Amino acid sequence: MAEEKGYAVPGMPDHLFERGEVPMTKQEIRCLTLSRLRLKKGQTVLDVGAGSGGLSVECALLIPEGRVFAVERDPEAVKVIRANLEKFGVQNVTVLGGAASEVLEGTGLPPQFDRVIIGGSGGELQAIIKRSRELLVSSGVIVINCILLETLYESLQRLEEEGFSEISYIQAAISRSRRRGGKTALQPLNPVFVISATRNN
Amino acid sequence: MAEEKGYAVPGMPDHLFERGEVPMTKQEIRCLTLSRLRLKKGQTVLDVGAGSGGLSVECALLIPEGRVFAVERDPEAVKVIRANLEKFGVQNVTVLGGAASEVLEGTGLPPQFDRVIIGGSGGELQAIIKRSRELLVSSGVIVINCILLETLYESLQRLEEEGFSEISYIQAAISRSRRRGGKTALQPLNPVFVISATRNN
Amino acid sequence: MAEEKGYAVPGMPDHLFERGEVPMTKQEIRCLTLSRLRLKKGQTVLDVGAGSGGLSVECALLIPEGRVFAVERDPEAVKVIRANLEKFGVQNVTVLGGAASEVLEGTGLPPQFDRVIIGGSGGELQAIIKRSRELLVSSGVIVINCILLETLYESLQRLEEEGFSEISYIQAAISRSRRRGGKTALQPLNPVFVISATRNN
Amino acid sequence: MAEEKGYAVPGMPDHLFERGEVPMTKQEIRCLTLSRLRLKKGQTVLDVGAGSGGLSVECALLIPEGRVFAVERDPEAVKVIRANLEKFGVQNVTVLGGAASEVLEGTGLPPQFDRVIIGGSGGELQAIIKRSRELLVSSGVIVINCILLETLYESLQRLEEEGFSEISYIQAAISRSRRRGGKTALQPLNPVFVISATRNN
Repeated sequence: MAEEKGYAVPGMPDHLFERGEVPMTKQEIRCLTLSRLRLKKGQTVLDVGAGSGGLSVECALLIPEGRVFAVERDPEAVKVIRANLEKFGVQNVTVLGGAASEVLEGTGLPPQFDRVIIGGSGGELQAIIKRSRELLVSSGVIVINCILLETLYESLQRLEEEGFSEISYIQAAISRSRRRGGKTALQPLNPVFVISATRNN
Repeated sequence: MAEEKGYAVPGMPDHLFERGEVPMTKQEIRCLTLSRLRLKKGQTVLDVGAGSGGLSVECALLIPEGRVFAVERDPEAVKVIRANLEKFGVQNVTVLGGAASEVLEGTGLPPQFDRVIIGGSGGELQAIIKRSRELLVSSGVIVINCILLETLYESLQRLEEEGFSEISYIQAAISRSRRRGGKTALQPLNPVFVISATRNN
Repeated sequence: MAEEKGYAVPGMPDHLFERGEVPMTKQEIRCLTLSRLRLKKGQTVLDVGAGSGGLSVECALLIPEGRVFAVERDPEAVKVIRANLEKFGVQNVTVLGGAASEVLEGTGLPPQFDRVIIGGSGGELQAIIKRSRELLVSSGVIVINCILLETLYESLQRLEEEGFSEISYIQAAISRSRRRGGKTALQPLNPVFVISATRNN
Repeated sequence: MAEEKGYAVPGMPDHLFERGEVPMTKQEIRCLTLSRLRLKKGQTVLDVGAGSGGLSVECALLIPEGRVFAVERDPEAVKVIRANLEKFGVQNVTVLGGAASEVLEGTGLPPQFDRVIIGGSGGELQAIIKRSRELLVSSGVIVINCILLETLYESLQRLEEEGFSEISYIQAAISRSRRRGGKTALQPLNPVFVISATRNN
């Protein structure tokens, strides 16, 4: 069995994934995102701005009876997602190329989602959060990852305006050890904000 | 179904667990630990210094066909572990009360483990790492969590002396948002070092 | 000479200061603030929301020929500031009790300042930044400290609206060592944002 | 007056300094180092592994009646130090080229120092700490900066062996804002450990 097959957990090593030139959510952030997402068996997940597909793959592996819809507007990234789906032998992810604003209004989606991940918003954050709320079931969870302060702030504002509850976030400042002449220094990853909220009404 | 049942992922919220007066590995650190542990289906896991049992529970849920052995010397903590096993409906964890140095030499363990977690060492770190290497299969992974600088340093030294390879670590500095008068500040958790290494020979 | 006299540098230890029940800017944040402030000899400094007066004292010691005006609305804090001025033998600080919005419009201030520090805004951030720009000389520097995400965001917005340039900030995540049984853990201070900007027109 | 002249405080901006190819202690770390160093008027300072001379320059400016001895073994770095002394108009720094182990045993130094900074040890950490203790006055302060975990650990061990007291450290994880398309992300600097201790006997 290939190295990338058979892992039971999220937060798989970065090097297992195809990446191309597409930005990738790092191992540590993927697992923290999934921790906030609180997936349950058989759920339906929407991954907006799926990038290289790391989170879609891990969701799909965690809930093999569930379904994941990965939305991504960069055609190059769509190719990388497909390559990763094949690499990890994942069957339960549907990739939808195009801008989120269009795809989320289109006919290719199920009527409701249990979980929404926003990994990238391409300047459409407000519309995506609004539409996500409509698509989420009651008690559904949304998780938004961002590195920009302004996106963090705007997300919190929009989540509140849209009536989400349990709005909270973490800042993950992870440093990885790096060997330097037989000793080790800490190499910081870019700090990421992981925001989560629940639709309670 | 109770709130604590049915989650597919590690990094479950802290409040779901029984804690008593026993220190608990926080949600974010649990999921980062499991990310480093790289569990596979059906594996056998040793959790030394299991504390309140959070990591044992999550391992057991992630690999339901696998087995987890939780070693803990504090009788109070052993009770908390058992309460958590019951709360989460976990059947595949064996709790072994007693000092690690004794339990790991005793007859209650299987001859080999695929994964070892060290969450606490009670001053016996050197002996536990040495014994862990003996118990680990080839390509087996060990993950050590610590907050003390000295334990980090000593772990790296011992892992190297024992011939482990791929020795690395992360420092996880996680801050959680905290509401203050309608606004949010960052509340830092204690930084934790998560060390991992592989037995390659 | 008393321990608190004679130090040449900012970032003096916290325990040297009187504190009462008043929140205090920690040693590490004081020195980072002064680093961003870029004081020069003989300058005039406005310290809004002076709290226990730590930054006013350090500014006054750094530029003994300069003048510092400390604005603070909490009468209890005003007492603590005065106690610290006495303790450090500082003569060049004027304490102005009252809400910033009133004090900054009043007659007790010089017409211009070279530097402005905002350590607390009491809900009047927008007005204080606007008034600060009016009071600042050309090339004058403003430094704002905050722990709230919303204050950070709002400060950046207001500074931009008011035409400040060189707007930037740091996030200072400082952990101090703490002895635990002969070993050391890292105890994180609350992360602080230190914002700085220049009036260039 | 040139931009780099006339500042009253430590933690001057990085871009003011000549750097060449020599590693430089960043602005934020320089000011935190000086905060721990607790300089007083007229003191004598030893700066071992002075690098590009940033800390020597700032010490010299803070205590103009004092004296600073900068030890640096890299001839290229010695040139950079001299360039910085000239640039900042500093007269009270003596530069001593050569390995610390030799320079500290040689005849070019005063018999005692009030403060010692170790910014680099070139593999001679143990000898430098031992010799520093001999050279320090009673109540003298030593500050060691490092990015390597192993240097942190070894420093703490050696300081304790040499009988230093008040041994403590901070970890400074500073992130600077970086503009990205009109918004801001946090760019982490490498975390630095700043260790301090006092000779009390």
